[in-house]
Amino acid sequence: MAAISFFGDLLQTISERGRDLIGFGRGDLAARANAQELIKLCEDLISRRGEASGVALARLILDRYASLARPERANFLRMAATEFAADHDAVDEAIAAYRAAPSRAALGALHDAAEPRSQELIRRLNLARDGTLALVRMREDLFSLRRALRDEEADPDLIDAADSLDSDFEHLFASWFNRGFLVLRPIDWTTPAHILEKIIRYEAVHAIADWDDLRRRIAPRDRRCFAFFHPALVDEPLIFVEVALTAGIAPAIAPILAHEREPLAPREATTAIFYSISNCQKGLAGVTFGNFLIKQVVEDLAREIPSLKTFVTLSPVPGFATWLDRERRADAPQGLTREDVEALRLIDEPDWHADKAKAEIVRKAMIPAAAAYFLRAKNERGKPLDPVARFHLGNGARLERLNFLGDVSRKGLAQSRGLMVNYLYDLSAIEKNHETFANLGTVAASSAVTRELRNNLPPARAVALADA
Amino acid sequence: MAAISFFGDLLQTISERGRDLIGFGRGDLAARANAQELIKLCEDLISRRGEASGVALARLILDRYASLARPERANFLRMAATEFAADHDAVDEAIAAYRAAPSRAALGALHDAAEPRSQELIRRLNLARDGTLALVRMREDLFSLRRALRDEEADPDLIDAADSLDSDFEHLFASWFNRGFLVLRPIDWTTPAHILEKIIRYEAVHAIADWDDLRRRIAPRDRRCFAFFHPALVDEPLIFVEVALTAGIAPAIAPILAHEREPLAPREATTAIFYSISNCQKGLAGVTFGNFLIKQVVEDLAREIPSLKTFVTLSPVPGFATWLDRERRADAPQGLTREDVEALRLIDEPDWHADKAKAEIVRKAMIPAAAAYFLRAKNERGKPLDPVARFHLGNGARLERLNFLGDVSRKGLAQSRGLMVNYLYDLSAIEKNHETFANLGTVAASSAVTRELRNNLPPARAVALADA
Amino acid sequence: MAAISFFGDLLQTISERGRDLIGFGRGDLAARANAQELIKLCEDLISRRGEASGVALARLILDRYASLARPERANFLRMAATEFAADHDAVDEAIAAYRAAPSRAALGALHDAAEPRSQELIRRLNLARDGTLALVRMREDLFSLRRALRDEEADPDLIDAADSLDSDFEHLFASWFNRGFLVLRPIDWTTPAHILEKIIRYEAVHAIADWDDLRRRIAPRDRRCFAFFHPALVDEPLIFVEVALTAGIAPAIAPILAHEREPLAPREATTAIFYSISNCQKGLAGVTFGNFLIKQVVEDLAREIPSLKTFVTLSPVPGFATWLDRERRADAPQGLTREDVEALRLIDEPDWHADKAKAEIVRKAMIPAAAAYFLRAKNERGKPLDPVARFHLGNGARLERLNFLGDVSRKGLAQSRGLMVNYLYDLSAIEKNHETFANLGTVAASSAVTRELRNNLPPARAVALADA
Amino acid sequence: MAAISFFGDLLQTISERGRDLIGFGRGDLAARANAQELIKLCEDLISRRGEASGVALARLILDRYASLARPERANFLRMAATEFAADHDAVDEAIAAYRAAPSRAALGALHDAAEPRSQELIRRLNLARDGTLALVRMREDLFSLRRALRDEEADPDLIDAADSLDSDFEHLFASWFNRGFLVLRPIDWTTPAHILEKIIRYEAVHAIADWDDLRRRIAPRDRRCFAFFHPALVDEPLIFVEVALTAGIAPAIAPILAHEREPLAPREATTAIFYSISNCQKGLAGVTFGNFLIKQVVEDLAREIPSLKTFVTLSPVPGFATWLDRERRADAPQGLTREDVEALRLIDEPDWHADKAKAEIVRKAMIPAAAAYFLRAKNERGKPLDPVARFHLGNGARLERLNFLGDVSRKGLAQSRGLMVNYLYDLSAIEKNHETFANLGTVAASSAVTRELRNNLPPARAVALADA
Repeated sequence: MAAISFFGDLLQTISERGRDLIGFGRGDLAARANAQELIKLCEDLISRRGEASGVALARLILDRYASLARPERANFLRMAATEFAADHDAVDEAIAAYRAAPSRAALGALHDAAEPRSQELIRRLNLARDGTLALVRMREDLFSLRRALRDEEADPDLIDAADSLDSDFEHLFASWFNRGFLVLRPIDWTTPAHILEKIIRYEAVHAIADWDDLRRRIAPRDRRCFAFFHPALVDEPLIFVEVALTAGIAPAIAPILAHEREPLAPREATTAIFYSISNCQKGLAGVTFGNFLIKQVVEDLAREIPSLKTFVTLSPVPGFATWLDRERRADAPQGLTREDVEALRLIDEPDWHADKAKAEIVRKAMIPAAAAYFLRAKNERGKPLDPVARFHLGNGARLERLNFLGDVSRKGLAQSRGLMVNYLYDLSAIEKNHETFANLGTVAASSAVTRELRNNLPPARAVALADA
Repeated sequence: MAAISFFGDLLQTISERGRDLIGFGRGDLAARANAQELIKLCEDLISRRGEASGVALARLILDRYASLARPERANFLRMAATEFAADHDAVDEAIAAYRAAPSRAALGALHDAAEPRSQELIRRLNLARDGTLALVRMREDLFSLRRALRDEEADPDLIDAADSLDSDFEHLFASWFNRGFLVLRPIDWTTPAHILEKIIRYEAVHAIADWDDLRRRIAPRDRRCFAFFHPALVDEPLIFVEVALTAGIAPAIAPILAHEREPLAPREATTAIFYSISNCQKGLAGVTFGNFLIKQVVEDLAREIPSLKTFVTLSPVPGFATWLDRERRADAPQGLTREDVEALRLIDEPDWHADKAKAEIVRKAMIPAAAAYFLRAKNERGKPLDPVARFHLGNGARLERLNFLGDVSRKGLAQSRGLMVNYLYDLSAIEKNHETFANLGTVAASSAVTRELRNNLPPARAVALADA
Repeated sequence: MAAISFFGDLLQTISERGRDLIGFGRGDLAARANAQELIKLCEDLISRRGEASGVALARLILDRYASLARPERANFLRMAATEFAADHDAVDEAIAAYRAAPSRAALGALHDAAEPRSQELIRRLNLARDGTLALVRMREDLFSLRRALRDEEADPDLIDAADSLDSDFEHLFASWFNRGFLVLRPIDWTTPAHILEKIIRYEAVHAIADWDDLRRRIAPRDRRCFAFFHPALVDEPLIFVEVALTAGIAPAIAPILAHEREPLAPREATTAIFYSISNCQKGLAGVTFGNFLIKQVVEDLAREIPSLKTFVTLSPVPGFATWLDRERRADAPQGLTREDVEALRLIDEPDWHADKAKAEIVRKAMIPAAAAYFLRAKNERGKPLDPVARFHLGNGARLERLNFLGDVSRKGLAQSRGLMVNYLYDLSAIEKNHETFANLGTVAASSAVTRELRNNLPPARAVALADA
Repeated sequence: MAAISFFGDLLQTISERGRDLIGFGRGDLAARANAQELIKLCEDLISRRGEASGVALARLILDRYASLARPERANFLRMAATEFAADHDAVDEAIAAYRAAPSRAALGALHDAAEPRSQELIRRLNLARDGTLALVRMREDLFSLRRALRDEEADPDLIDAADSLDSDFEHLFASWFNRGFLVLRPIDWTTPAHILEKIIRYEAVHAIADWDDLRRRIAPRDRRCFAFFHPALVDEPLIFVEVALTAGIAPAIAPILAHEREPLAPREATTAIFYSISNCQKGLAGVTFGNFLIKQVVEDLAREIPSLKTFVTLSPVPGFATWLDRERRADAPQGLTREDVEALRLIDEPDWHADKAKAEIVRKAMIPAAAAYFLRAKNERGKPLDPVARFHLGNGARLERLNFLGDVSRKGLAQSRGLMVNYLYDLSAIEKNHETFANLGTVAASSAVTRELRNNLPPARAVALADA
């Protein structure tokens, strides 16, 4: 009647069952074998009624999965994708029953029958301590597998199955990482080092060079950083935003990241600049965080620092260089006049931006082009081409300013010809902006931006233009 | 461009929309009107694409719901149950498509179409801060509604719809309150008072009279209490268990709850008695906690106090008195001999238990009857009649002892004729016990218990008997 | 080279040394013997140079002391008081050296020589974990001893020695419990129960009946409670104050303590009433806390709730009944006219306060008498007779109002004939009030109070009167 | 009756008083003036009776002090040292009274009179929030002043006064930073960055190059770090120790600090190596921490990791190179034979330690020399020359091993010719070792060390040698 570890006992119980699976060699055969063994354990986990030992079994599966080599893990995921589908016979029966008597109960039964068994599997794996993080990591492996399947032009059914498994993850993660479960925490110089280390690693917009660089971004009194956390992933930020408190809307990134600065007293700040926002967990792709984060931070900062009146981003324009090059080569550009094309030849010259005269000529052509890029150029769904624009406009922000040479770093020049923009979060207008953008594709923009749009462009899609 | 509260703005936006709904009178008409207004807001919440203002809208709906009078809330839930069903046309289309080409994608589409829209509604309401608790409370209202509908013999369709809405809650709560998200916390005399107040209120087995009584249960060094919490319901215990550390298996509850006791040094304890386990949130009915709680506490205590060798409950037998009375009146009792029936007449006399001679006569008849109650009497699903027995046996515990006059309180005599039992949690046997019980209905019992079973009972269902 | 417990080893080392002390019988002899043994250990502690084992030895002494019976502890303290005096020979030498060459170093040496060795003993006992609390408790025992010595008219030298030991405690406690080391913490319904239990126990002004009563004082949104803690006494409040947020200056205690009240929204409060302030640790008598506590709470509340404009106490007048009775019996009362004496005869009648007519007659005499009590009656040091008045006036507060029948509880009528008063903390006047009170004995009082003073009183000590 | 800030009011009150002090120019005159103004405020602080405004006044003085330029601060400290001495007249009176009647009370009065007023000043300055840290920093300035006074051969009286002021600080700090008030906290990779930054800065033995280096020392599972903190200095470690868990006594530092290592599972560790211990606060010089830290860490580690049997340092020998050079040049060396001197010529050659043959020759001479350095060479107080040896032996540790070429870093070769040693903390022997070392100067050493001592050395001081 000894009280030895529950896990220990369970392992024994399970290993008796799985004894014949022991003793595989190395290499691909072993990989498949191990994966197959894991699939068996998963079947076991999903089929038992009482959940009596579910916690330990889930932990065992996740531990074994983590110990597998990469190809073994891929094998496991292939099998999981195909073997935990819904049962087609059961679906057919449920359809028949529903057709016979389309009651609510029959529909419920149909819904249940049509649910992939992989959803229940994922839920049960989450019984384990730290299971959620393990599942997030597992989905990252699934991304790799899906890429690989597409690259190797695998069986479409298999691709389908893998995509479907990914949807199961996304569906459950969206439920588990619901806004109501997220916790906002400030990140500053009193934050534990193992969290800060991840901020350094996950920063995706303006790379953080080292700990000194990090310190400059979070320690001064006119800098803020906030991250969302989930209680089940205590040490893992989900998304974070870096904020500079300033005396006005910043048009360029370099002064914000400067090494030597005199910090501003927060009570003298009028403007909060959101200059970097990074998602941290690839495995949570498709789950919305940024939208909630920005709004929460705006509210919290407005309460903490009453002098703040303006909440604005300083954002890159990642699609601009590609679009501009295409326009310049086009027979009938949508956003450039002939003169603009001519003027923009200068940007092919090295260091054009450092030459004041050249820069001024470029500016006169580039700013109207940028206005067209944001206000007229649309993708097939009628939304702006620029992904960052789609994010902020979709949140209800307004395109406020076009900043010529806002980012003259190598990356800034390469991807956006130095252009940066500000999106303004005006809480009193967010709801309306969001709705017109979502429903009509209308881009909310300041008159300063719309004024830049040339009158003499071809009429195409001018309909989508609006002044907020 | 002012940074006033996001909620404030949203309220304005929404109230413009809802202006025509303002000004209802009181009473039932108003109730329906308000409920209808809320339903409109719910439609709004569920249909908007960007989630831009979902947080504030969800908060608004939940706040308004909380401010409704009881009949208004019932009205809202009636409407919600019927109006957020799946769209039958869409289901029919999805069925057709799936039949035409039964691909994984088509099945996924069918699954989506068959999902009640109320599930998405619940998910979106959970965007709000403290939304989860509000939803748990809402489900409690739904229980009342469902009872009322049955009582008033309402339209079966409506009953169906309400049951279906309840299933949606249960399904999502099971996912959100997954074991992986629960946090175990000790409850002791250093716990904040507002938590302790709830322990007093929620105790369901042996009522806690007042703060002094509570103190006696959690402050002494040989007493422990543990509760599960969920990060989204910070101040609300979900379930808790009270534990006494003793030098042997306790056969009666009174000494455990005694006012004057000399506490035992923990390192001298050999046995942990789980003498009370209470679920706290009616709104989470159907979500499994107790199973996980007991196992976690066994593991933690075994680690903390190495001298502990035995983990056992001291449990009531809530169905025993009813069964025994039925048996005594039966023409052909299943668990009593003619002599037993005769002997048990004594329990109709007042204070029989206080008379040693009478008690001894009763004991000789009651203990074999109890053995029959646990080992032979089964419900329609082949499981024991006693709900507490089903819980612990389902967890993999073993019925260890039958304690005559273990609880001579008024409640104890009324519901179980004074009987209490011990269920033993032996971690090395839990898995096997659970499986045989789940699959075959076999009751794991000590030989001390099985020995009590009379040989001369009728043969019925003796099949179900087993010695662990 | 085993790493067994440091304490264990030390105990062995020490017990070898003290073996001959083992084996005492019970009773007084044993008491003295044990006390003597402890004194030896104290000598050991104080004389060792390296502090190598001081922590364990200090712990041992304090543990043994705690395990002694009361008379043994008294014996120990007697001995400690006499045996750890300064060394007179060393003092004489130091005096001689200082006289020969009155250098700073010689003076320092003299200071060191004149320090009672008991101070160093107390410092070293504080090396032990939880030593500070044990020392506070030890001083409480010393209070009992000093009372007993006076009661039994003991040798004046011994009384002197005990008083001197008490001064050593007070001196060190004043240094250790310096304001800079105190931590202010709010006490509310989320505070751990073991702290709240002490609030109930330590409340000294308006007794807290039970947990429900406590809840009414700290849980509502218009109630606050704050306590000072010291990091070395984590679970022991040092002093606490109870505050009611109201819409005006409360003249009576009953409405504040009422069972059924509609709580006020804090933002509608204009006034914070400090209606109870209690010291918790008798062993810290003489160390100032209340002054700092009130000022800190005023500052914190003013910051948290900008609508608060008035900070005022609602205080008992514990010396009033005694003084009034003396005056009434006096041949030449200082604060009553002949008519007043006549009118006040009514207060000898039972339930006079419940009779409106009688109460009105009493009021007209009592309020001027109260004005005289506060403004004219002085003790031998020229300060008001009332101890609560001395405390608040010494803090720089102003006597703001005299509240007739402010406390009609049995205690309130007995000790102050129902009178309560408000002292106002006006931060802009505190400094000046304090200085004039400290230097001149001038009582700061509102004109409403000074107006009540009769003109026709005898001239004695009228000098001390002033209007703030 | 407005509730504006208490500090604000006080500042006004005080500035009225000090108005004539406003308007000083810059430079030395201003410095003296500002210092003088501060001295006046200090007089004010120390003389007021009621402590009514002490908190704010103390804060004001400390803030002003912090804002002074370095020479102004020095001026303030000069004045404070001379002007807050004890009052000689009062001392003379107290002596006379004591001589007339040498009572305990008279002695107490003498003790009080002889106390420098600067002690009371320091206590009162500590009323301020964060006052303790400010006082620690002030003592650091006092160190600079004392050095400067000695360097400039200032008036001996002034030097005396400054030394005396320093004693006051040390006396009070020893009381405030008593072991009983210290808190031990682990330092690891989850520690807040602003604390870790200070660990990097304060490490005094083996410098921490950067954050990666820090991470290697505190993040791996076989590394530990612990620091003492004081509640009044929350973000300032007082002292910390770095520990490596190993499978045996490490003879060299390089493997411990290696970049690429396979960490050991803690349960496989038998030995805890204390390889670096650093005091953090210069202003707390003279207050004992290291002794308590090591013992506490030994106890805690022994409890946490039962497999640990040996607790040992890996220590530098900072005085060895100097002593060895002196010996080599001496006519009659105390610890070297003629042959040793000859062999040790090799260490004057560059990179001698990298040549195996040379190193072996050196080793044979250096190890006996090291034995003599530790066991025979004594300072004027009969203690070992080496300061690190005095610390650990004074704590009761035993000199366990001499490690030739234990530290071949530039610093290691320069200060100790590569020698490192292990001191063993055997808790069962600490008390005895400490006492014999403290009383007799006996060095506890393993037989492995004592065996190395040559027999043919001159007899001087061989008495002090002992084998533990």
